[in-house]
Amino acid sequence: MTVSSPTFQTGAEVRIAVRKGAFTGHTVGVAPSFVQGNVVILPKAHAYDFLLFCQRNPKPCPLLAVSDEGSPRLPVLGMDLDIRTDIPRYCVWRDGELVGEPAQIQDLWRDDMVTFVLGCSFSFEQALISSGLSLRHVECGDNVSMFKTNIPTVSAGPFSGPLVVTMRPFMPADVIRAVQITSRFPNVHGAPVHVGDPAAIGIRDAGRPDYGDPVEVRPGEIPVFWACGVTPQAALAAARLPLVITHAPGYMLVTDLLNERLAVF
Amino acid sequence: MTVSSPTFQTGAEVRIAVRKGAFTGHTVGVAPSFVQGNVVILPKAHAYDFLLFCQRNPKPCPLLAVSDEGSPRLPVLGMDLDIRTDIPRYCVWRDGELVGEPAQIQDLWRDDMVTFVLGCSFSFEQALISSGLSLRHVECGDNVSMFKTNIPTVSAGPFSGPLVVTMRPFMPADVIRAVQITSRFPNVHGAPVHVGDPAAIGIRDAGRPDYGDPVEVRPGEIPVFWACGVTPQAALAAARLPLVITHAPGYMLVTDLLNERLAVF
Repeated sequence: MTVSSPTFQTGAEVRIAVRKGAFTGHTVGVAPSFVQGNVVILPKAHAYDFLLFCQRNPKPCPLLAVSDEGSPRLPVLGMDLDIRTDIPRYCVWRDGELVGEPAQIQDLWRDDMVTFVLGCSFSFEQALISSGLSLRHVECGDNVSMFKTNIPTVSAGPFSGPLVVTMRPFMPADVIRAVQITSRFPNVHGAPVHVGDPAAIGIRDAGRPDYGDPVEVRPGEIPVFWACGVTPQAALAAARLPLVITHAPGYMLVTDLLNERLAVF
Repeated sequence: MTVSSPTFQTGAEVRIAVRKGAFTGHTVGVAPSFVQGNVVILPKAHAYDFLLFCQRNPKPCPLLAVSDEGSPRLPVLGMDLDIRTDIPRYCVWRDGELVGEPAQIQDLWRDDMVTFVLGCSFSFEQALISSGLSLRHVECGDNVSMFKTNIPTVSAGPFSGPLVVTMRPFMPADVIRAVQITSRFPNVHGAPVHVGDPAAIGIRDAGRPDYGDPVEVRPGEIPVFWACGVTPQAALAAARLPLVITHAPGYMLVTDLLNERLAVF
């Protein structure tokens, strides 16, 4: 998937290249030992409700860091990090509509902006792969399948909506191993939320995802479902705030945290 | 320690007795399978900064639930729960000074109050005891030793200050077991923050705690230090807010959550 990407050894190298405009690609498989984050930037007026939404829904919204108001810095994720320039592609949302996908947001920055960085499944996928498990969507060069469920999130202010999940099929022995491995990483979605029958969580057709690509479930395999970072994105879009800036899908913030540092044991 | 306490089977039974005035004691060892929580109630004006302080310092400030503004309910911790009446003893703080310890706070309640419930070490102590480990302070009928360290918290708004830790001594084999057991419970302080030399984290005399009772470290034992819920209490006192209400030490909120439900594996 990343044959054309330059090879970066650290998250800081990625960010410097992005900041200079020397790297403009997606970040799948880039500096894979380092934590990549979903990014949400919004005005302070909405920051409390969004922080509360994350606290109440930690599986889909695992918070890694929150900036000070007006500061583009997140020293806990990288001393040099500047959130206005260090992501290869942003999405700008006004009243819930996508209005642009710029490569930097210095012109949009305001003194009341607050940045939220949330863990993403790249971290636990790296752990699954390192443990010898095969991920079908990675093998096929596809995006993971994502589905809206009938499981509601716990609302906070204007933010609500269904839990969105990713699905990865495994043979039974690997289902057990996948539960063990991802349980180590509660800060990047953690253990699965469901195993088996998709209909039990409101998914009518596991072959027709709401987001991402279809992923085949082969005979003898069990579909396993994890909480997904699209959940807060969908809640944000539905809230139709005047201004929200996010990373573009697949174009993540690459941090200085090692994935293994997120393991609780 | 709890020979004189009535026997409650569930958290709900404890809360009903407290609400009626039928139980006014401390909650150490009461309904021990159920999660007990540290409680902080403050006006919405300070809620964002306190929520951010908890997000930035999850080991001393493991958030279990946050109420809606003005609501005394916390349905995620108990359907009937009323935070104005369900704690046996409260502390009322004005400008950082303790001004009262009432048995209910209905007269102090305001429409802008927000309640935070934080995990406490009772949950992981129960897990340690269930695994056959001995806790010296429990054996001796004492309070755990607590110490201010030279480890700073990450500040948020007016909230800052040193990490406060609890100390429990164990023989080396039990140190290993205690790390394993408490790692399962990141929502109630999780794994230790330090093992061994107290001076390495700024504790000059392990026999003279800043809070609680002295606890003997016997020959061959290693002191083990965990992040402590006194950390946010000290940060709150130092911030000298006009009004904060907390539980009184040892008089906790007893919830309907089973301790084992907090285990990440």
